[in-house]
Amino acid sequence: MTDLDDVRTPFLAVDRSTVQANVDRLRARLDRLGAGLRPHLKTAKSVEVAGLLHDGEQGPITVSTLAEAEAFADAGYRDILYAVGIAPDKLGRVVDLRQRGVDLAVLLDSVEQATALAAERTGLAGIPALIEVDCDGHRGGVRPDDPTLVEIGQALRDGRAELRGVLTHAGESYFADGDGELRAAAENERRCAVLAAERLRAAGHEVPVVSVGSTPTAHFATDLTGVTEVRAGNFVFFDLVMAGIGVCTVADLAMSVVTTVIGHRPDKGWILTDGGWMATSRDRGTSRQRVDQAYGLVGDLDGTLYEDLLMSDASQEHGILSIRPGSTASLPDIPIGAKVRILPVHACATAAQHDRYHVIEPGSRTVWDIWTRIRGW
Amino acid sequence: MTDLDDVRTPFLAVDRSTVQANVDRLRARLDRLGAGLRPHLKTAKSVEVAGLLHDGEQGPITVSTLAEAEAFADAGYRDILYAVGIAPDKLGRVVDLRQRGVDLAVLLDSVEQATALAAERTGLAGIPALIEVDCDGHRGGVRPDDPTLVEIGQALRDGRAELRGVLTHAGESYFADGDGELRAAAENERRCAVLAAERLRAAGHEVPVVSVGSTPTAHFATDLTGVTEVRAGNFVFFDLVMAGIGVCTVADLAMSVVTTVIGHRPDKGWILTDGGWMATSRDRGTSRQRVDQAYGLVGDLDGTLYEDLLMSDASQEHGILSIRPGSTASLPDIPIGAKVRILPVHACATAAQHDRYHVIEPGSRTVWDIWTRIRGW
Repeated sequence: MTDLDDVRTPFLAVDRSTVQANVDRLRARLDRLGAGLRPHLKTAKSVEVAGLLHDGEQGPITVSTLAEAEAFADAGYRDILYAVGIAPDKLGRVVDLRQRGVDLAVLLDSVEQATALAAERTGLAGIPALIEVDCDGHRGGVRPDDPTLVEIGQALRDGRAELRGVLTHAGESYFADGDGELRAAAENERRCAVLAAERLRAAGHEVPVVSVGSTPTAHFATDLTGVTEVRAGNFVFFDLVMAGIGVCTVADLAMSVVTTVIGHRPDKGWILTDGGWMATSRDRGTSRQRVDQAYGLVGDLDGTLYEDLLMSDASQEHGILSIRPGSTASLPDIPIGAKVRILPVHACATAAQHDRYHVIEPGSRTVWDIWTRIRGW
Repeated sequence: MTDLDDVRTPFLAVDRSTVQANVDRLRARLDRLGAGLRPHLKTAKSVEVAGLLHDGEQGPITVSTLAEAEAFADAGYRDILYAVGIAPDKLGRVVDLRQRGVDLAVLLDSVEQATALAAERTGLAGIPALIEVDCDGHRGGVRPDDPTLVEIGQALRDGRAELRGVLTHAGESYFADGDGELRAAAENERRCAVLAAERLRAAGHEVPVVSVGSTPTAHFATDLTGVTEVRAGNFVFFDLVMAGIGVCTVADLAMSVVTTVIGHRPDKGWILTDGGWMATSRDRGTSRQRVDQAYGLVGDLDGTLYEDLLMSDASQEHGILSIRPGSTASLPDIPIGAKVRILPVHACATAAQHDRYHVIEPGSRTVWDIWTRIRGW
């Protein structure tokens, strides 16, 4: 067993108990609301984290790349949704996975894609597709009242494909301000998905799956009537953006970047570390929130936060720590060689900068395990 | 040979001839000014790119991580500067490399670090160190007139270490506005480094190396008297930040992210692609420049730019292309499945999102080679 203090910095530490608590909390919520969980593995990209999501079973999952789909298929997962609009030249890999016995479903929002899908020769039943529905104007999808919705359903039925259901994602929820707006975003997400499903059903289609989700709406939905499954990904680790919009507290953050102090600039009120944006990412997701956390909050190696100490700036391999503007706190005395933990602004982006997680437990400095991340596309 | 159109998107394309032209341009400049080039491999992180820098020789290089130092040592490089302030617990790996015959020098800016270095048992001559000098307040380093400078030199001499020289980096040059400010930043960088070297020499130290550099100052210095070597890294690929400050033109950009169109939102004026921030990074380095290029300019697969088309927004695996605000250009008609090239805002950050380069030549769609990137720390 390695001690946390002996790992080469910068690196990612993940607190397994906190991940499990985050998972248990969301599962309990969705059980009460009567909806299934199809966790989005785009954040964790880890077979070991996925194992915590369904009590060790290979339950239904969502992925953001075919590389993830292939890695989870290798790990025994058989119910996978690839939730990025399908490009026709990716269909070969989709067919390969389906021929391996994976029930891989794809996403689309145009008649062109439906026609390409319907023409694909799988040698098996048609490829199942969910139609992406736009509930708040943040990405792709057809509006639930757009006639194109039914045309896509028809194009799938006319060909060899299967209309599996509808999917929407409340991109607006990441900008919600307060519980009221979060609940409204969740209800809007549900309402749009259910409306789209009803319009397709009225046109004679079966629509078994009604899929919604984002980490904020999953935690603030109060009614999921008509929804069959909820997707969320960030909730396993949480981050300062989520804490800023009130979905979690800072104590729920399960991941941190461990860095080493390499210098001091008392004239500027700076502590320098060996963790720059290569270790944290360039994400500045709290810059438009009420409290700007810059590149993250700073704690000691045991996770105790320093008062008002931020990672305030970053170059490629340098982090700058300084006291939050306006605070009367003093710069702590952290010697060269000491390790500090940076709580990330955006867990998905920070994790993407690393190849593996060092698994810890609260109150212990032992690295219990190394979990690898799936990379590439 | 693979065709560029057959590679799984998103991926990085690098134009080898453009890299070579960028290298030749800087080498010619520095030859005229009488300074050596110690290229910074933090941008390219590639043995193959390094091979273009010194006419196929393993010349002097700069690295930003010990993982880079180890990979370049494996490739035969023997003159390596690790240009991030040394943490004492990294000295074991430094000693290992030196015992393999690599002349690896480290960087420091405190008496504490010098004392730790001087105490290290190498079994060989002392570890050579450069003292980091702060020329414009952007990162670490001691000011050239700070008495600490000479104290660090003394601490190195008192122990078993070697004072190899002084190093500075004009962080301010990335924010320069116009040629005059760039020339001033370059002269300030030179003046500070030379002043620091002179102060150490006056205290009885030999200071063989006077190292300066950044891509902007390397291209705008008009006098390098007293400087022995110039470091620069970004110049191999260039990017829109560098074009924005006038160090290169858009035609000099050697790297792009190839993505596939996966949808359209004519109601919003959007084209959607399968390349989000996972493929480009979250870097928004032009947001404070005169012209904000968002996540990058967009060209077709042959590299011809679309008029005023930007990658205007990004989620993890989605890019949004739209016409620059205020432009009268029309959204081009790019069908689902077509590939587009995104010219990056910040090459160092964009390249870091990928494991390899697909090597192309101008006017050809053939992928001539795959170059791998060095990852981790």
